[in-house]
Amino acid sequence: MAQFKRIAVVGAGLIGGSVLLAAARRRLAGSLACWSRSEGSRATLRGFGVAEVFDDAAACVRGADLVVVTTPVDTIEETFRAIGPGLAPGAVVTDAGSVKGVILEAAGLLPAANPFVGAHPMAGGEKAGASHAAAELFEGRVCFLTPRGDEPEAALRAVRSFWSGLGSVLHETGAAEHDEIVAAISHVPHAAASALMLAVMDQSGYRRFAVGAGLRDTTRIAAGEENLWVGIMLANARHTAEGLRDVERRCAELRAAVENHDAAALRRLLADARVARQSLDRNA
Amino acid sequence: MAQFKRIAVVGAGLIGGSVLLAAARRRLAGSLACWSRSEGSRATLRGFGVAEVFDDAAACVRGADLVVVTTPVDTIEETFRAIGPGLAPGAVVTDAGSVKGVILEAAGLLPAANPFVGAHPMAGGEKAGASHAAAELFEGRVCFLTPRGDEPEAALRAVRSFWSGLGSVLHETGAAEHDEIVAAISHVPHAAASALMLAVMDQSGYRRFAVGAGLRDTTRIAAGEENLWVGIMLANARHTAEGLRDVERRCAELRAAVENHDAAALRRLLADARVARQSLDRNA
Repeated sequence: MAQFKRIAVVGAGLIGGSVLLAAARRRLAGSLACWSRSEGSRATLRGFGVAEVFDDAAACVRGADLVVVTTPVDTIEETFRAIGPGLAPGAVVTDAGSVKGVILEAAGLLPAANPFVGAHPMAGGEKAGASHAAAELFEGRVCFLTPRGDEPEAALRAVRSFWSGLGSVLHETGAAEHDEIVAAISHVPHAAASALMLAVMDQSGYRRFAVGAGLRDTTRIAAGEENLWVGIMLANARHTAEGLRDVERRCAELRAAVENHDAAALRRLLADARVARQSLDRNA
Repeated sequence: MAQFKRIAVVGAGLIGGSVLLAAARRRLAGSLACWSRSEGSRATLRGFGVAEVFDDAAACVRGADLVVVTTPVDTIEETFRAIGPGLAPGAVVTDAGSVKGVILEAAGLLPAANPFVGAHPMAGGEKAGASHAAAELFEGRVCFLTPRGDEPEAALRAVRSFWSGLGSVLHETGAAEHDEIVAAISHVPHAAASALMLAVMDQSGYRRFAVGAGLRDTTRIAAGEENLWVGIMLANARHTAEGLRDVERRCAELRAAVENHDAAALRRLLADARVARQSLDRNA
């Protein structure tokens, strides 16, 4: 028997669409429902043939025992307000937002009868939209859960069971620690990749024909959709800004070593970076 | 009939080893010779079974009509001095160094009877050493040639024929322009990737278990061998330092937008970076 009677996915881009495909393949629910603001996305979702597609968020969540909110970070408040009237008492709400502090605050907008457990699957990519959704998106990937500690044990169990049911590897942590972690491993790298792309396109020597795998990989994530990332970076502004300041400082250290022809200092910096980077491969 | 009687490859790491494997597979020469400073590399080269392996650079180049110097940028002068006594009159010399200004100057150390045409195949990777060599390394990849304009036409033809014979797509340019180009597309990205890795490892939120494809790709090239890159960056110091300064400036712009919660400025910067990055994929 399926774990859930009905799962509703609210906001169906890359993540929401992939949740639907994965939940369908893994038979996590008796039925699936979804909502998207745009007619184009709704058409894509209908094409999946796995969920009832709604153009009204409150109608979408009606009768669901689990609701997964996958709208962008900066529209989560609005989404919480919109689904409130449709939520069945006791229906558990989770999300997939990249920043958790602001979202846990916004969860206060949900009816008191609906427990919320924040989640953040570390999955995605620079290609946005339901049309890039994939059932295997979450398999083997870390998914953070950020329980506050005061939610009903059954709600926490349901959310754990849902995300691990999609194939994720769960990691539970506080929202504040989560936001610090994702700044370091995701938001700062995204901003730095964008800064590099902007700097490179300004160079008089920039020639697209000569670009190889090095620059392509280093800037790949800078191709991400900016509206999504504006919301994420502003919702995690302090940690993102602090990390960017450190990138500037490290660039300046490397630059000083180059300008002063200080081979020893340059070697030490590049070696430290190499060792740190190689440790990521050993970890893989 | 092979294009060359005998090709000698001097210095056999990733590039030199791949030159040997590619030249053998494509039958570019009647015979192949190679030299490496280290006994470990010589053993690897012997294992390839395609070239006569020497522990003396001058002996290695004896009898060759084409000599390919693949030692690191900061040892090229030393290599040019070492091979001089062995070079047959008229033997053509080329190289694979990542910076061309300093190498063209160093080529003055070669005997007057040996024309030099600088080359830079845009191939490689963060894994150094002959043990990572591959016959297909150059296929479809850009190879810069930087003729001075005063070399014998036959020498230029020989070098063109050699590098295109390995599968490279040739692009001829001046040494100064070459160095500006590779700063933009390779040396600055390498330094920026190292700076990002250093900054990320300093963050209190850095957790290796949570690192995904984004940070991995963004920092992949920072795993490169530092001694090679110290030589490259110092040989191209002015352009590398200027580019790094631009990376710092762009990071600071993004940081200011984040700190000031200026969504419009942040969106504009991220959108400019996205458009520039996407144009690299259209170009692919």
